[in-house]
Amino acid sequence: MRVDLPLSSTPRTRLGRLRERGRSDREELYAVLDAGMICHLGVVIDGAPVVLPTGYGRIGDTLYLHGSSANRSLLAAGGQQVCVTITLLDGLVCARSVFHHSMNYRSAVVLGAGRLVTGADERLAALRAVTQQLTPGRWDHVRPPTRKELAATAVVAVPLAEASVKVRTGPPSDDDEDYASPAWAGVLPAALVFGQPEPDPALSEAIPVPDHITGMAGRARADIRPAPAAPDRTS
Amino acid sequence: MRVDLPLSSTPRTRLGRLRERGRSDREELYAVLDAGMICHLGVVIDGAPVVLPTGYGRIGDTLYLHGSSANRSLLAAGGQQVCVTITLLDGLVCARSVFHHSMNYRSAVVLGAGRLVTGADERLAALRAVTQQLTPGRWDHVRPPTRKELAATAVVAVPLAEASVKVRTGPPSDDDEDYASPAWAGVLPAALVFGQPEPDPALSEAIPVPDHITGMAGRARADIRPAPAAPDRTS
Repeated sequence: MRVDLPLSSTPRTRLGRLRERGRSDREELYAVLDAGMICHLGVVIDGAPVVLPTGYGRIGDTLYLHGSSANRSLLAAGGQQVCVTITLLDGLVCARSVFHHSMNYRSAVVLGAGRLVTGADERLAALRAVTQQLTPGRWDHVRPPTRKELAATAVVAVPLAEASVKVRTGPPSDDDEDYASPAWAGVLPAALVFGQPEPDPALSEAIPVPDHITGMAGRARADIRPAPAAPDRTS
Repeated sequence: MRVDLPLSSTPRTRLGRLRERGRSDREELYAVLDAGMICHLGVVIDGAPVVLPTGYGRIGDTLYLHGSSANRSLLAAGGQQVCVTITLLDGLVCARSVFHHSMNYRSAVVLGAGRLVTGADERLAALRAVTQQLTPGRWDHVRPPTRKELAATAVVAVPLAEASVKVRTGPPSDDDEDYASPAWAGVLPAALVFGQPEPDPALSEAIPVPDHITGMAGRARADIRPAPAAPDRTS
């Protein structure tokens, strides 16, 4: 797949409404994926949908999810069509009518065939991407996985070939006649913010908080440099 | 359904692993649902899962979702088994090994048959619950929906009968031999925080920011009183 190609627009991802919010640009997709912390994985089990939150990472045009090798949804995902959705809430859009209330958000919906990753190198790179997605710099700070731990971990790959991105920004859009309303209208911004690190009570006081943690503390996720997920930075 | 009964545990919601994180108590479910802002709705369309983020509200033992009456996923949800998942990220759990990294979170997974709500009273109560879930006090501040707006809105009900709640709190849990590691370990707390309100540029300066907005500004969602979603408060 050529990275500079636009995302394919299929009947499933073509936006049936709110077309103005659809952005078929691949860079927009990367931006949403790289800014997220958690995805919601949808699979079909016994004919019914199951949606589970989990961590993820991106390497180039592949999304990687991981979890316990006993996780039924993750195992089911390796060999069926899945849907992976990432949603970032940016604000509550308060209009002058109930009807026009909305949210400012960025979301990505990725559709594709899940593939259970079995190659040792790809599995390790994927786990690194998942770890770095949440806490850039963490992977090199801690003990790498043992063979036994790797055996207890399932990794699923989903190609970034069929996807849609939706973004809403800005103030409410009200009906003309409602602009004379005495109601307050505007946006209440929202963001995921990190607090101050809480050391493990079992931690030696001689061990300082490392830069990769202090660099996130007290800051909004949106203000933190995306995890190094691009192919040229995962080697 | 008796509200004081525990949630039913079915093969789908019985937790196959990490049983200690499963809480079958209904109050725990209410607490997670009432604290959330966005749910992820999973449906099956043409045999494949589709997961979309949307607002929701709770009235007693019913979860209500709403959206455009042209929203294919929402319409599909009215008449099939659906999965509604709410996830709240509370912190990044940084262990001494890659393998034991985790997140502190609260999540609820609700499984059930979606029902397209057609009764006028129930639809209005549901829309009120959805609006109040995001911004308590907002419903009474703005213009209610017109008949035309109601016709453009789909409301789906999902019974809170089959569900699971998972909660993780506290510091990392490392392998015994890793406690001698020089790596920093602990929790980096995370929370959804509201900023300062941004008035609509078209808003008259004579209209002050109302209490229901100032009461949320600069505060974490977790510190804001849950929306009035219980049955005795929706009348």
